[in-house]
Amino acid sequence: MFSQRLEAAGAAVQAHFDKVLAEFEPLPIVEAMAHATSGGKRLRGFLVLETARLHDIAAGEAIWSATAIEALHAYSLVHDDLPCMDDDDMRRGQPTVHKKWDDATAVLAGDALQTLAFELVTHPGASPSAEVRADLALSLARASGAQGMVLGQALDIAAETAHTPLSLDEITRLQQGKTGALIGWSAQAGARLAQADTAALKRYAQALGLAFQIADDILDVTGDSAQVGKAVGKDASAGKATFVSLLGLDAARTRAMSLIDEACDSLATYGARADTLKDTARFVVRRTH
Amino acid sequence: MFSQRLEAAGAAVQAHFDKVLAEFEPLPIVEAMAHATSGGKRLRGFLVLETARLHDIAAGEAIWSATAIEALHAYSLVHDDLPCMDDDDMRRGQPTVHKKWDDATAVLAGDALQTLAFELVTHPGASPSAEVRADLALSLARASGAQGMVLGQALDIAAETAHTPLSLDEITRLQQGKTGALIGWSAQAGARLAQADTAALKRYAQALGLAFQIADDILDVTGDSAQVGKAVGKDASAGKATFVSLLGLDAARTRAMSLIDEACDSLATYGARADTLKDTARFVVRRTH
Repeated sequence: MFSQRLEAAGAAVQAHFDKVLAEFEPLPIVEAMAHATSGGKRLRGFLVLETARLHDIAAGEAIWSATAIEALHAYSLVHDDLPCMDDDDMRRGQPTVHKKWDDATAVLAGDALQTLAFELVTHPGASPSAEVRADLALSLARASGAQGMVLGQALDIAAETAHTPLSLDEITRLQQGKTGALIGWSAQAGARLAQADTAALKRYAQALGLAFQIADDILDVTGDSAQVGKAVGKDASAGKATFVSLLGLDAARTRAMSLIDEACDSLATYGARADTLKDTARFVVRRTH
Repeated sequence: MFSQRLEAAGAAVQAHFDKVLAEFEPLPIVEAMAHATSGGKRLRGFLVLETARLHDIAAGEAIWSATAIEALHAYSLVHDDLPCMDDDDMRRGQPTVHKKWDDATAVLAGDALQTLAFELVTHPGASPSAEVRADLALSLARASGAQGMVLGQALDIAAETAHTPLSLDEITRLQQGKTGALIGWSAQAGARLAQADTAALKRYAQALGLAFQIADDILDVTGDSAQVGKAVGKDASAGKATFVSLLGLDAARTRAMSLIDEACDSLATYGARADTLKDTARFVVRRTH
């Protein structure tokens, strides 16, 4: 049931990307944009669609924000994979954009995907209310810029440059930016679209985002690169501090599970309607890719 | 008079950047963002402020959009200067971001400057009307993405890769994206802020943008790199088609001058209030940097 919903959301996001990108000129960078946005779990887009459903927002509106956050996430991956950043050759089981094309195409395709995210949330289709569209764009900018996701990436680079392993507090803060900020935006999008209170979804997202990152660190140690779809074991071999290196594997698993309970408890106000979001939290720590 | 107004606008944009960036953590990427946004003519920000004044928009509102377009322009320069793109060491008489820091910092600082542009136009300070803020963000995304500025950059790369010199029509189209789109947004911003008709300012911007690019091509041939603040003669030595290589220096100058007349004529509806914008058009072709 949950996996079917996740799959259906992924297909809906893909269909919207297909429609949107068909209006662009068929240049290499547009092919690269399509490549970068295909595949993946589409977890962020799913969170937008599910929290929108919870607030009775029509799927035809929510799909714009769901596609936007996947465009933004894809841009961050394309740039993060560049040789001057993490230098990764594989992503989602496919060659990364700079491997399939070149570095210049990866820089430009990433840039255009970020722009596309802001175009999608401010498109009249995203909401009949201009107040909502302006709020979506402002909150998305705050989540993804130098006080959100990019801050996390910059802290990550600073830590690598300094060769000083991070403390648990520092790594938590880093990850709140690097992965938590976009997951937080995704999970609050439904309430934003409905101009409703975002507090419960914000608490849910904070626990979910942290659990997601701990699970990612566990996968980096225990996962199989073919199944994960990208290189594994990179953090350990680089001597980077992770939740696993700091807590140990068992304690990291226990912490992830208690965060899932916390995430589910935050949804109490929504009752049984939020069951899919609770399944999402469980999926996030049990996933194998 | 005109040069004083231009200078005052540059100082106002700088002050706004200082205020906005002071709220960010003092990390290397934030220093790089400040470096990338300092100096320059601030022509795009000036166009926003001047067209806003023409439509009786308060300077305290227009400054948000003026700073936004300068952030977006700065992001495009930081990424354009990267070794995998144009590989430039100097910009505005200063080392480029990847020379002063490194490639990773340049990628992230550019990314965060793009995000900042969307944060600034959707900030409540940019306009009391959410309709206007959403419209500013949507039009900015359309001007800067893979159907605007990035399209121009991609066409430029495609032309270099193909080693086929472009025709006058092709180079005009490329430049309408690469420089014309942002100049167009800047010059129409005042009308957008006032929810007024943008047609006259659009015609002005189209002529101005093309004249600007022809002047840039002329400077690349006749300019002095110390005065221009970046390398010159690069296009000619790379065998790239430019307005000068296609038209010859004299005809390029004549074309630029007739475009300036066209730009000024477009402003007839505004009467003497648009004199500064007419001076701007003349400045654009007479500038030495």
